[in-house]
Amino acid sequence: MVGGVGRERSWWGWGWADEALGEAECAALAKQVRGFLVLDGDLSRPPEPAAPSPHLRPPAALQEICRVDSRTRAAHARGKAYRDVVRNLAGDLTNPPDLVAFPRSEVDITAVFDWAASVGAAVVPYGGGTSVVGGVEYRGDAPWLSLDLSMMDTVEQVDETSLAARIQAGITGPALEDQLRPYGLTLRHYPQSFEFSTLGGWLATRAGGHFATGYTHIDDAVEALRVVTPVGIGESLRVPASGAGPSPDRLWLGSEGTLGVIVAAWVRVMRRPAFRARCTVTFGGYADGVAAARDVVQAGLRPSNCRVLDPVEAMLGAGVVDGSARLLLGFESADHPVDAELARAVELCRAHGGTPEESTSDTAGEWKGAFLRAPYRRDALARLGVVVETFETACTWDRYDALHAAVIDAVTGSGVPAIATCRITHIYPDGPAPYFTVYAAGRRGAEVEIWDQLKVAASEAIATHGGTITHHHAVGRDHRRWYDRQRPEPFTLALRAAKQALDPHAILNPGVLVG
Amino acid sequence: MVGGVGRERSWWGWGWADEALGEAECAALAKQVRGFLVLDGDLSRPPEPAAPSPHLRPPAALQEICRVDSRTRAAHARGKAYRDVVRNLAGDLTNPPDLVAFPRSEVDITAVFDWAASVGAAVVPYGGGTSVVGGVEYRGDAPWLSLDLSMMDTVEQVDETSLAARIQAGITGPALEDQLRPYGLTLRHYPQSFEFSTLGGWLATRAGGHFATGYTHIDDAVEALRVVTPVGIGESLRVPASGAGPSPDRLWLGSEGTLGVIVAAWVRVMRRPAFRARCTVTFGGYADGVAAARDVVQAGLRPSNCRVLDPVEAMLGAGVVDGSARLLLGFESADHPVDAELARAVELCRAHGGTPEESTSDTAGEWKGAFLRAPYRRDALARLGVVVETFETACTWDRYDALHAAVIDAVTGSGVPAIATCRITHIYPDGPAPYFTVYAAGRRGAEVEIWDQLKVAASEAIATHGGTITHHHAVGRDHRRWYDRQRPEPFTLALRAAKQALDPHAILNPGVLVG
Repeated sequence: MVGGVGRERSWWGWGWADEALGEAECAALAKQVRGFLVLDGDLSRPPEPAAPSPHLRPPAALQEICRVDSRTRAAHARGKAYRDVVRNLAGDLTNPPDLVAFPRSEVDITAVFDWAASVGAAVVPYGGGTSVVGGVEYRGDAPWLSLDLSMMDTVEQVDETSLAARIQAGITGPALEDQLRPYGLTLRHYPQSFEFSTLGGWLATRAGGHFATGYTHIDDAVEALRVVTPVGIGESLRVPASGAGPSPDRLWLGSEGTLGVIVAAWVRVMRRPAFRARCTVTFGGYADGVAAARDVVQAGLRPSNCRVLDPVEAMLGAGVVDGSARLLLGFESADHPVDAELARAVELCRAHGGTPEESTSDTAGEWKGAFLRAPYRRDALARLGVVVETFETACTWDRYDALHAAVIDAVTGSGVPAIATCRITHIYPDGPAPYFTVYAAGRRGAEVEIWDQLKVAASEAIATHGGTITHHHAVGRDHRRWYDRQRPEPFTLALRAAKQALDPHAILNPGVLVG
Repeated sequence: MVGGVGRERSWWGWGWADEALGEAECAALAKQVRGFLVLDGDLSRPPEPAAPSPHLRPPAALQEICRVDSRTRAAHARGKAYRDVVRNLAGDLTNPPDLVAFPRSEVDITAVFDWAASVGAAVVPYGGGTSVVGGVEYRGDAPWLSLDLSMMDTVEQVDETSLAARIQAGITGPALEDQLRPYGLTLRHYPQSFEFSTLGGWLATRAGGHFATGYTHIDDAVEALRVVTPVGIGESLRVPASGAGPSPDRLWLGSEGTLGVIVAAWVRVMRRPAFRARCTVTFGGYADGVAAARDVVQAGLRPSNCRVLDPVEAMLGAGVVDGSARLLLGFESADHPVDAELARAVELCRAHGGTPEESTSDTAGEWKGAFLRAPYRRDALARLGVVVETFETACTWDRYDALHAAVIDAVTGSGVPAIATCRITHIYPDGPAPYFTVYAAGRRGAEVEIWDQLKVAASEAIATHGGTITHHHAVGRDHRRWYDRQRPEPFTLALRAAKQALDPHAILNPGVLVG
C-alpha cells in the first residue's frame, strides 16, 4: 500500500526511493557546499527501519484495513521535515504508530474512531505524510495509530457545467490531475509536495499552491466539504457563495485533523491553460525586485508566477553568478492572450531598474527544475551533515523590510555558522509571503538540536516583526508555541469548545492546535 | 444621534425621511402598478412612533450612552424589510428595545455586556439597522437593548504601503469612503444599503457589494478583526494570508452579533479606478444572457459589473419595453486600460446572439439610478398596499435553470396574485447569485401574512433546488428555519459550543444562528 504498486516511497526521506541522489551526485554536491560550509566528508547511509514493538494490536474487525509491519509503521512515524529525515538517518525511530489503518470508506473511519476511543488510542490523520512541521507524528504517551487516507483516492463526479468536481480526500496531486485531464480540466494546485501530498492534506493544512496570486490557496477552491467526526458526519451545501452564518468549511480548513477527517470535497476546477506569457527580469538589488513585484500585484495584475529570488537563491537555484536578483513572471489563461498583462508588468519592472532577460535563456525553467529536485537535494545534504531546512511566513508590506532583515540576522547571528536565503513565493496586494532556506554546518548527532536552535531564533524574529508563524506549511507540533501566541484569545476559547464538542474523547491528533 | 446631525433618518421606512416619495410620485407609481395589480386606491400614512413603556432603565453608569425616548426606541425596533415597514406603517410597535445604547469604546461595550448579563437582558447589535431578515429585532420575552455602534465611526489608520486601513465598525459607507478619499484609496464595497449600513454590519453578515465578480464579498477584504465578547477582547494578526489553523476571522464573519461585537477591522483597500469600459448587451431571451454571463466569468474575465436583467427587470428598472433581456458589463482598473477585456466579453456575448447597445444609450446608468431609489419606491408601494419584497440565493450552474423556474412557479403559483422578476447580481465561475423581486396584491392588515406565505414558498423552492438560503442578505430570524437545514450537523455542534464559550449568559442576539 505504501507508495502504491510498482514504485517505492522512501521510508526515511523525501519522495520515491529511486530518485534519491546517488553517490556521485552526493560527492558533487559536497564539493559545491564546501565553498561555504565545513563538512566532515562522511555520507551517512539510511539504516533498515526497525520500529519498536507495538503496544496495541488492531481488533479482528479492523484487521483487514490495518498494517503493523515495521516498515509501514516506520514510514508513518513522522513527516518529511529535515528534523524527521536526520532522525530517520540516525535510526532514531522513537514512538512510531502502533498500527497504520487504511480506511476505504467513512464506515471504516467511524469504526476506527470508535475503537480508538474505546482503547484510549490517539488517531493521527495521514494524507501524503509530507508534513514539515510535525503534523503526522505523535508526541504523547498513549498508544496511537496513523490513519492513512490513501485508499480514498477517486474523482467521484465532474460537473462540467459549473466547472467543479467532487473528489475524495486521499487522492494525490498527480492522480487528481490524471482523473480531471479527460475533461480538459485542472485544479491547478501545485504545492512543492504535489507529487505525494493529497487533497485532504491540502485542505486540512490550508496549503498554498505554486500560483503566486489568485488561485494560491486551496481554501478558495472549496465549494463544499464532507467531514467525518467522532460524533457524526456532515457535508456542507455545495454553492458558489453563501452568506448563511460563518462558513462551515472554514472551520475545517486548517483544522489539521483535530476536528475530524475531511473525506471529500467539491472543488472548483478550471479549463487547462492555452495561452501563456512569461519573462524573467533581472534587478541589481533584491529590494528593487521586491518593489517591482509589489507594484505588479498592486496594479491589479494577477500573474500565475511572480517569484522574487534574492541573489543567493538565484545563484543556488538558477546558476546566476553576477549577484543580481531575479523576478520570475508568468501569466496564463484558458481563454485569451495574456501578453498585454505581461507587457504592463515588465513596464512596471523597468521603473525599478529591471531588465527583462533575452528570451533564449530559461532562468524560470532552470529554477523550476531545481525547485522540484530540492527535497531530494535536501536529503543528500542531510546525509552529508549539513543542517538544511526551509520556513516561510507572510506579512504586510509595511513590515517586510524589517522582518526580512531580522530573520536573516537571527539565523546568521545565532552562533551557528549559517547562511539564509530568501525568495518571495506568493504575493498579495497587501504583502508578500517570503520563503527562507537555511544552510548550516552540522555536527553528527546534534543536527536536530542545531536546527531547533535556528528555528527558534527565526520564529521569534518572525513573531516579533508581525509575520504569521506559517503561510502554508501549517502549524503541526513544531509551530505550536508561536501559533498559541498568534491565535486571538476568544478564538482559542471557541476552538477549544468546538474541539470538545466534536472530539469528546480527545483522540484526534492530540498536541496540534488546541489539543 | 439617530441619523446624525441635520438630516433625519426615517424611523418607519428606508433611508432619509426627506427622500421618501411625495404624494404626486406615489400617485404616478400607483398608475403604473395598476397595469398588473389591483390596488384599493388608498395611500397609508406613517403614524407617530409610540413605543410602549420600557421594562428596563439604564443604570446610572450607562445613562450617558443610552437613550430611552420613544422615537429612538421605535427606530431601533426592527430592520428595513418589507414586513418591518408595513408593521411600522400599521402602528404595530410590538416589543421595541427597552433602551438603545451608543457605546463610544470597547470599555462601554464591556460595561453594557456586564450589566445586561446581570439583569438578564438581551443585547442586539445594531449597525445601520438595514437588515431585511429580522437581524436587529428581538422576538423573545426578556428585556432587551439595541447596541448601536454608530459612535465608533473612524478610519483610525491608513497603511498606504500595504493598501490597507484600520477602521472602526460603526462607520457607514459614505463616511468610510470620505475618510479614505484623501489618500486616493477606496474600499469599493457598495451593497445597496451602502449609504446607511456599516462596516461592522457588512462583516457580521458577510455582505456582498456591487462588484459582480472578484471583490464582491467583504470577507475577502479582511486582514484582521477586533472583537469584543462577553468573556474578553481579541484581535487577529494582521497579515495578507496565513495558514495557521482555521481562520479566526472567518468565525466572526457571518456571526451576526451572536459571538461578540466586531469593533474594528483592518481591511484591504485599493487605488481609485482610473480606467473604465462598459457596455450593455441585448439578448432575445433571458437564457441567452445568462449563458453569455457564464461564459464571461468562466473565461477568467473579472468584470466589476456583470448583471443579467430578465425582461421584466429590464422593463421596470431600465424602461426596456421590447421584451428583451439585458447584460450590463463593466470593467475597471486603477492601473491600465480594460478595453481588451470588455471586447473579449462582448465577443463571448455575440456567440449567444447578444447585441451590444449603441454607446449613446445608458441602460446601465438608468438601471443604477433605479437601483438606488428602489428601497424608497418599495416603501411607497407598501403605502399603496402592494406586497413587494426581494430575496436572493446562489447555486451552482448545473442547478440554476431548475431553481429559477421553481422559484418563479412557487411565487406565481402560491394562490396570491403575484409576479416575480429576476436579475443575476453576482456571478462566479461555478454559479450565479440570482436576486428576485416579488410584487403581489396586498390586503390591508394582512400584508405580513401574505408576504410570509410567499416567502415560505420561495424559500422552500430554493432549499429544494440546491440554493443557499442567503447569498448576502444574512440569516437573521426570517431565514432561521432554512439555515438550520442548510447548516451541517457537525458545524451546528461546533458553533453551539463556541457560542456557549463566548457568550455564557446567552445575551447576544438570541434567536439568531444557533441561539
